[in-house]
Amino acid sequence: MLPRGRPRALGAAALLLLLAVGFFLFGGDLEYGRLRGAASLDGELTRDHNRSACLPLRSLLPKCELLHVAIVCAGYNSSRDVVTLVKSMLFYRKNPLHLHLVTDEVARNILETLFHTWMVPAVRVSFYNTSKFQSQVSWIPNTHYSGLYGLLKLVLPDALPPDLARVIVLDTDVTFASDIAELWAFFAHFSDKQMIGLVENQSNWYLGNLWKNHRPWPALGRGFNTGVILLWLDRLRQAGWEQMWKVTARRLLLTLSSTSLADQDIFNAVIKEHPGLVLLLPCLWNVQLSDHTLAERCYSEASDIKVIHWNSPKKLRVKNKDVEFFRNLHLTFLEYDGNLLRRELFGCPSQPPPQAEQRQRALAHLDEEDACFEFQQQRLTVHRVHLTFLPLDLLPSELHDVTLVAQLSVDRLQMLEALCSHWPGPMSLALYLTDAEAQQFLRFVEASKVLSARSNVAYHVVYREGPLYPVNHLRNVALAQARTSHVFLSDIDFLPAYSLYNYLRASIEQLDLSSQRKTALVVPAFESLHYHLSFPTSKAELLALLDAGSLHTFRYDVWPRGHTPTDYARWREAQAPYQVQWAADYEPYVVVPRECPRYDSRFVGFGWNKVAHIVELDAQEYEFLVLPEAFTIHMPHAPSLDISRFRSSPAYRDCLHALKDEFHQDLSRHYGAAALKYLTALQRSRSST
Amino acid sequence: MLPRGRPRALGAAALLLLLAVGFFLFGGDLEYGRLRGAASLDGELTRDHNRSACLPLRSLLPKCELLHVAIVCAGYNSSRDVVTLVKSMLFYRKNPLHLHLVTDEVARNILETLFHTWMVPAVRVSFYNTSKFQSQVSWIPNTHYSGLYGLLKLVLPDALPPDLARVIVLDTDVTFASDIAELWAFFAHFSDKQMIGLVENQSNWYLGNLWKNHRPWPALGRGFNTGVILLWLDRLRQAGWEQMWKVTARRLLLTLSSTSLADQDIFNAVIKEHPGLVLLLPCLWNVQLSDHTLAERCYSEASDIKVIHWNSPKKLRVKNKDVEFFRNLHLTFLEYDGNLLRRELFGCPSQPPPQAEQRQRALAHLDEEDACFEFQQQRLTVHRVHLTFLPLDLLPSELHDVTLVAQLSVDRLQMLEALCSHWPGPMSLALYLTDAEAQQFLRFVEASKVLSARSNVAYHVVYREGPLYPVNHLRNVALAQARTSHVFLSDIDFLPAYSLYNYLRASIEQLDLSSQRKTALVVPAFESLHYHLSFPTSKAELLALLDAGSLHTFRYDVWPRGHTPTDYARWREAQAPYQVQWAADYEPYVVVPRECPRYDSRFVGFGWNKVAHIVELDAQEYEFLVLPEAFTIHMPHAPSLDISRFRSSPAYRDCLHALKDEFHQDLSRHYGAAALKYLTALQRSRSST
Repeated sequence: MLPRGRPRALGAAALLLLLAVGFFLFGGDLEYGRLRGAASLDGELTRDHNRSACLPLRSLLPKCELLHVAIVCAGYNSSRDVVTLVKSMLFYRKNPLHLHLVTDEVARNILETLFHTWMVPAVRVSFYNTSKFQSQVSWIPNTHYSGLYGLLKLVLPDALPPDLARVIVLDTDVTFASDIAELWAFFAHFSDKQMIGLVENQSNWYLGNLWKNHRPWPALGRGFNTGVILLWLDRLRQAGWEQMWKVTARRLLLTLSSTSLADQDIFNAVIKEHPGLVLLLPCLWNVQLSDHTLAERCYSEASDIKVIHWNSPKKLRVKNKDVEFFRNLHLTFLEYDGNLLRRELFGCPSQPPPQAEQRQRALAHLDEEDACFEFQQQRLTVHRVHLTFLPLDLLPSELHDVTLVAQLSVDRLQMLEALCSHWPGPMSLALYLTDAEAQQFLRFVEASKVLSARSNVAYHVVYREGPLYPVNHLRNVALAQARTSHVFLSDIDFLPAYSLYNYLRASIEQLDLSSQRKTALVVPAFESLHYHLSFPTSKAELLALLDAGSLHTFRYDVWPRGHTPTDYARWREAQAPYQVQWAADYEPYVVVPRECPRYDSRFVGFGWNKVAHIVELDAQEYEFLVLPEAFTIHMPHAPSLDISRFRSSPAYRDCLHALKDEFHQDLSRHYGAAALKYLTALQRSRSST
Repeated sequence: MLPRGRPRALGAAALLLLLAVGFFLFGGDLEYGRLRGAASLDGELTRDHNRSACLPLRSLLPKCELLHVAIVCAGYNSSRDVVTLVKSMLFYRKNPLHLHLVTDEVARNILETLFHTWMVPAVRVSFYNTSKFQSQVSWIPNTHYSGLYGLLKLVLPDALPPDLARVIVLDTDVTFASDIAELWAFFAHFSDKQMIGLVENQSNWYLGNLWKNHRPWPALGRGFNTGVILLWLDRLRQAGWEQMWKVTARRLLLTLSSTSLADQDIFNAVIKEHPGLVLLLPCLWNVQLSDHTLAERCYSEASDIKVIHWNSPKKLRVKNKDVEFFRNLHLTFLEYDGNLLRRELFGCPSQPPPQAEQRQRALAHLDEEDACFEFQQQRLTVHRVHLTFLPLDLLPSELHDVTLVAQLSVDRLQMLEALCSHWPGPMSLALYLTDAEAQQFLRFVEASKVLSARSNVAYHVVYREGPLYPVNHLRNVALAQARTSHVFLSDIDFLPAYSLYNYLRASIEQLDLSSQRKTALVVPAFESLHYHLSFPTSKAELLALLDAGSLHTFRYDVWPRGHTPTDYARWREAQAPYQVQWAADYEPYVVVPRECPRYDSRFVGFGWNKVAHIVELDAQEYEFLVLPEAFTIHMPHAPSLDISRFRSSPAYRDCLHALKDEFHQDLSRHYGAAALKYLTALQRSRSST
């Protein structure tokens, strides 16, 4: 009755439970042949409803045991999918986890930043570069939609660290509905000879009778599905796994032209020759939701489901009887606020990342009664960041190219189409969204012909947290991802002249602005108060609208200081770029080298966030050159919530005041006497308002 | 080793498990005295970590057993709390549930609509009116913040149906972190004499040593907490529970002035006298999060937690070591999309509510390939509705009073303060929000002095579902909740004249408009294209702004037909109300009796939704009277996503076209030849555009 694995030192009580479990789940024997009764689609025990009720498998695990999970992930879309998988896993997990992510460069860039900023306690992440292992599988002809990356699961025993003995391998399209430790516990049921744990394939594919001339790869019966695998790595290494699967694959490829289901065909072919390698897992651990799935035979009630697997290329649009139930489960985690998964696994102490500890200490020092507590707290917030949320395909950067940089929240999505029609060049946009809003954004882009047609717009999602809009942090995220020599630092409510992109590139070339030269090209800003503006196609048209009162210089009535130094009167007549001087509260829209100073992320909410950046440029001796043909126009919109708050709250203004002082102290520290003029300007502006 | 409850017909396997469980959880005996070791704060076994790992208690339950839950809920705020509790319960449940809600009139109105529109499969809800039972407890002096309603738990054996044998009783401030069936399974552990299952109180309150002269009610040791109770109702009825608690309470009130902790004091006093009544439940089933809780002694790791109880008046702002963990758990369900809980409990067939079945059939008939599929689907959507999301305190309605009716989504929240300053009268607003946005809205109101000061604004949350904005359904929800004789049917982007509310009341009185008279008072509409409009305080000022070009008649440039029939030229000069005639596409803002026709909820998204309503008014022979001193002004805002979509999509316009045709067919059916003019007008307008 006992499994043949090493029982170790289990207490009397655990042994007693084990007896019960063994009896319950496996009907007395764990070997493959007999196991079929418990776990396969045709088995009898499948219909015993008590079987799946809360099995105490967890109790077989040492408390706080570290569980290892490997996932192969490549490209933009899989990087989004894997997040949903990880969220579902984290939601139910009770153990520390070590994720081993085998990624291409795109996925690595995205996921490294994501996990670094997510800061989930008791989760470690290691990355492995696919390019190192591609040659081991690239010789295999394969027609499956997962491409080369599907096949990479075959090389995991080689790719993962040699001291890693056991690992759970997951496809990116699975969703957990239970604690992964229950799955890990099946390692205890492996016999000495077994090294691979798998669920039966829940379709008739491998039976070869789906259509005429359907010639699948060889498999045991219905074969196995490789969306969820338990790999006993060191046994596989010892058994010469690499040799084993390569020999089998080479031989079969003499008669079969290619794999149809990638790694799964090869796993099955090897297992057909060595059935003793496999422990059959209960079907509930990989409920397969393809179009003609037989999965219904597996589960009989909702409480049975452990892991679902969207293994149809149609994914959530697949049709089957209970698909609404499965979609709901998936949507739960798709839209789940990932910040909530930052909860401590108390009882299992773990080493927090150094920056988390520092942050905790700083947070603990804050005084909740302080009027500026929210500002201070927001500054210490580390926002989760998902870079390049959507596919991006930038052309190789030219010498003089400009990326438009801006940030927005969900209430400005409707600006994107217009912006795309005004700016054909590359853009780097930071979006401040909740997890649910990120999905809304995705649907918005998919529904828009204009947006889906663009491949040179990078969307970086920064997840919402805290009451104040982290405007400068968002700008920095977008700025850091620009790939061109220059950046146009814009705001989402502005539409640039249709010609601006080409004009800027030409100007940078004509003025011979290398990325070393400290020049900020000023793009004069105007505003329309009318929604139905007929957008000027030339400077002459713009001036006519200005004279007709249909356009104004930006914030001429409420905040003239922000743009007065641009000298609009001179601009009217200018034929060539002209230099202007910094003055207090100047905040023009500028084009600068990508390596320009970052925004001061202490400025959150509304007020002075751009002003501080222009001060920094001036302090670093950037020259400001106004371009005679450049312009950008602010389109009308309702005031944002943050502005409303600023307007109604004296406390908010006081906190901003304090922030400005802090900023000027830092300026003095960095630039010494040269920074004196900013302080003088600040004091003069205060005494005049 | 076996519990003394009735073992019934358990299979051999279940018995074996039971042995293991009994051994594990209770150390061998289920009687009170010995049980303390397993479940109380001072017990030894608490620190045995394996104990709480996934216990197979569910397997003791017959599959699909119906579980009964009773909750006392009164007032607006508790009605919000109870939704979070119910969401957490539904998330983990695997069994059909019957909720027994003991409510005041406010909570009943809210929760009846909520559950009716939620349509969760396998959940039945029954309501019991608190007023019937209040007299049974109102004689007890009580200083606890729960007031009278806390005490009502004492009368549940009497208040619930006589054939209801067992029930779980929950406070509204608990959150589930596990399947409630595991809690229900403890009924199987009751001895023949036991009738109440309780968790020990996790503070030293009842020890009476918290401060000098602290005289708590009598209790066994630390006493019990009544946030989570298992009540064996028929045993309590047989044992004369009502007599029992009343005798005890009366006697103690001779020396104690009042209860401090409501029902909990009385439960404890009775139990002190009859300790045999109680089954002690493991502390994890009611982890109490008060300021000085001893709960830490109960759980040692995150996986232990089953139910948390926010039993401090500070609720989520309470301080304790692991409060972040608990807050995250609570926020998970606070912000969880309740629509996702509509998932079927397949495996446990249940009778769906009749309207759900009808809807399913209609949905099944839709053709996904149809260009208007989304429109048709949206029409069949039943949106969850939470009426009066925030406290409301309407004055008794006067004879001639007007409620402003409007609807909005989260991107228009910033309009609310201005609207409040323009309209001092009652308002009924429908808000189209996700669950997470509803929380954002709550924080927004709390942070606003203007909004928190108002008690005559009713906010009705309609939860988002589907891609199209259900504008007319939202209007109908808000309209149905108005309590005054008349309603002003407005839109959220309009600010009425400061004087409008009083002027309308006076006009209704002067014109002697009873709620039977079919009159629609027209409020002429204007628009400002400028954010910084200095709002006119009189008709004279408005006319001056109009002449200066700072204001315009509403949509004069893009949709003049919508308001032309109001006859602005005549209005300029008018001193008295004047009648105007309906014309094609007329959509004025009107004041009508509350019993006016409802909006046609087939119109979703953008376009023609108000026009159809005005047609309906005309068809029912309402007269349109323009008021000479009334006006309202549209404030500028960015176009909504729905409008952008309408503008860019010919398919969208075609679907709207089809909708209009359908609407006119219905008109002809209802009004016969009288409706001919609308069809003629429609055809004329089509041939001219």
